[in-house]
Amino acid sequence: MTAQTLRTEQQQQQPPAPGVTRRRLLGTATATGAAGLVAGGTGVTAVLRDTGDESVPLTTVGATRVPFHGTHQAGITTPLQAAGHLAAFDLTPGAGRKQAAALLRRWSRTAARLTAGEPASDGDTGIALDAGPSSLTVTFGFGHTFFDRTDLTARRPAALAPLPPFSADALDARRSDGDLWVQIGADDPLVAYHALRAVLRDAGETATLRWQTRGFNRTPGATAEPRTARNLMGQVDGTNNPTPADDDFAARVFVPAAGQPDWMANGSYAVFRRIRMLLDRWETLPLERQERVIGRRKSDGAPLSGGGEHTPVDLGKFGADGALAVAGDAHVRVAAPASNGGAAMLRRPFSYDDGLRDDGAPDAGLLFIAWQADPRHGFVPVQRKLDRGDGLSRFLRHEASALWAVPGGAADGEYVGQRLLEG
Amino acid sequence: MTAQTLRTEQQQQQPPAPGVTRRRLLGTATATGAAGLVAGGTGVTAVLRDTGDESVPLTTVGATRVPFHGTHQAGITTPLQAAGHLAAFDLTPGAGRKQAAALLRRWSRTAARLTAGEPASDGDTGIALDAGPSSLTVTFGFGHTFFDRTDLTARRPAALAPLPPFSADALDARRSDGDLWVQIGADDPLVAYHALRAVLRDAGETATLRWQTRGFNRTPGATAEPRTARNLMGQVDGTNNPTPADDDFAARVFVPAAGQPDWMANGSYAVFRRIRMLLDRWETLPLERQERVIGRRKSDGAPLSGGGEHTPVDLGKFGADGALAVAGDAHVRVAAPASNGGAAMLRRPFSYDDGLRDDGAPDAGLLFIAWQADPRHGFVPVQRKLDRGDGLSRFLRHEASALWAVPGGAADGEYVGQRLLEG
Repeated sequence: MTAQTLRTEQQQQQPPAPGVTRRRLLGTATATGAAGLVAGGTGVTAVLRDTGDESVPLTTVGATRVPFHGTHQAGITTPLQAAGHLAAFDLTPGAGRKQAAALLRRWSRTAARLTAGEPASDGDTGIALDAGPSSLTVTFGFGHTFFDRTDLTARRPAALAPLPPFSADALDARRSDGDLWVQIGADDPLVAYHALRAVLRDAGETATLRWQTRGFNRTPGATAEPRTARNLMGQVDGTNNPTPADDDFAARVFVPAAGQPDWMANGSYAVFRRIRMLLDRWETLPLERQERVIGRRKSDGAPLSGGGEHTPVDLGKFGADGALAVAGDAHVRVAAPASNGGAAMLRRPFSYDDGLRDDGAPDAGLLFIAWQADPRHGFVPVQRKLDRGDGLSRFLRHEASALWAVPGGAADGEYVGQRLLEG
Repeated sequence: MTAQTLRTEQQQQQPPAPGVTRRRLLGTATATGAAGLVAGGTGVTAVLRDTGDESVPLTTVGATRVPFHGTHQAGITTPLQAAGHLAAFDLTPGAGRKQAAALLRRWSRTAARLTAGEPASDGDTGIALDAGPSSLTVTFGFGHTFFDRTDLTARRPAALAPLPPFSADALDARRSDGDLWVQIGADDPLVAYHALRAVLRDAGETATLRWQTRGFNRTPGATAEPRTARNLMGQVDGTNNPTPADDDFAARVFVPAAGQPDWMANGSYAVFRRIRMLLDRWETLPLERQERVIGRRKSDGAPLSGGGEHTPVDLGKFGADGALAVAGDAHVRVAAPASNGGAAMLRRPFSYDDGLRDDGAPDAGLLFIAWQADPRHGFVPVQRKLDRGDGLSRFLRHEASALWAVPGGAADGEYVGQRLLEG
């Protein structure tokens, strides 16, 4: 009896999943032969898997494969992976459009191989041997400066204009921005590191690493059933994320197929912020104060206005004491879509821990990554509001920032960015 | 049908596992009710689990619990965990034996709670909420300097004498040694970070962090069946490790129950080395050259003298070309127990990746941790030989070092080190 047939029989014995919280959007488990469903509107081949009481075998962790080729790049709607690397590159002096095109071709070929569980090349490092693809994704983006370096300034999207400054910013330019961006995610940290080494090798003489950072999320199976992630403040983080089941999901997250510029069709814009958490300060706050700052219960993420994690926040509700149940400066109030003209973005972060700083404080927090069709209607208005009125901002430091134009996915035989670089 | 009953039925249908390579030593899956077997001689309560073709549910990852109390401390024979932190502390000026005893009592209480999946205290950070204990272990050790600071110099073990210098050492004192050591491991990185924050909080005014570093290993289920780990050179690493099935396992790894000093009964000595890998240089070597340096095939770890991964290395075998099949300076030859008087230690490392150094080289490699009853008969003679003749040493830099006396496990109601600190 194989793992797969076992799962299928169990599914027949199980009642339908009671709700979306018991489901998880997964990349196609090609290696185990699972049938794929196309999630509405996103073009991402995916399986909705009920893992409530079902005995999903441990071996699916390594075997799960997320296709590299498709309408959109992988690593945007892919479920959070346990390990990730973010790397930004600058083109070397003398490297222009032609060399950049060759690099993106190399990177795309490598990503296609690695995400299929194959070695990158004959000289593969072997770090990922024995492990399956482990939901590896490799996602590529272009920064504002890329277009000047490649004489493509005229084709730079207006949406890629540099993010405005925010009053709470304490940005380190050396860990911000860049010509090119690679996001790597996998459920196994050696598989992720293997991909990073292959990407660095491909960069060759064309691009040098500008900055890199690594992060993590829950290991598959660490929770008894799929749950909204927690961050290093211990807070449930991501409850209000749009989901592919939402009617306007694709419109919020992806540039339309007929959108402008044409080479960004089906692409998305990624905002990266390295957000250090002032954990020593945060952890001295009593639980009730922490919950007031967020506007949700820490235990289960339920809004302080009542209900469960997924109950809509009632911003107008008053408590028995006559005060607003969700405080005026609570994070969920200030960040709520209703408060900023319906702006929404798909937040898909990693946590990070880089040890202690010289001042003794933990150098840890969130590698915030937000995906949207246009940052001028996504991250920027939300962050403007948070910057002014969010009680949580006293416990956060934005220390690095970047904005990336992430083209649509490559078809088989294409490379990412080909419509820009050869268009 | 629960996951557990399912697993039991499957086991009945399965033939016995063909060999030790298809078995994995696991902590007791208390939360899922698995029956425990006591592995011979080690006193560690453990389950030998066959995961060959068996559908082990993903949910066991979080539910697996490794008991804190026992004859030996946990985290020595526990299978490699996916995430780890190593932290060294120095007692603050003015803190002596009494304060150290109180700290070890706090740390032991916290470790007992966290490894059971419970919060550390009322003010728990909540980072591990939703996840089970995820095989969390927290292991405590004492460094050479601890005994002077606590007026316990007379009870310092002779085996804790500082390690001798080696010619290839390039040690950073700030990242080496320390009064106290905490090793944290868990299969979920947030569970591991949660434990680190709790340990730091407990240190309070008694001890300050001297250094910390974090590492990783394979995620459970990333390989289709349990395999010997690979390191960031892509090499199978750990094939020759002693296993609890060996007659002399306990004698090699643990101080005897009647051993000296008495407070180290059932304890062990941990050698830590931060070993940076010169990956840029290593990865330019052709596969055949890499395999010659190691003495094993990269693909499956089989010795170049023939057979499979677990075939004993035939150091006297010559190839068709008249040369030794395993080269004179091959790592497996120089490290082989037969070459150094039978010395053996249990290597239980994590890989690490701290990004790029200022010189552009990867700051990545192995957090080498070796466990033995006496480092003078374990790590020291092996490293002396490697230091002289190992072809692999050209690709490694030992950048930090420490030696820890790790007492036996605490019984319920005791704390680790109690027999030293109250003896």
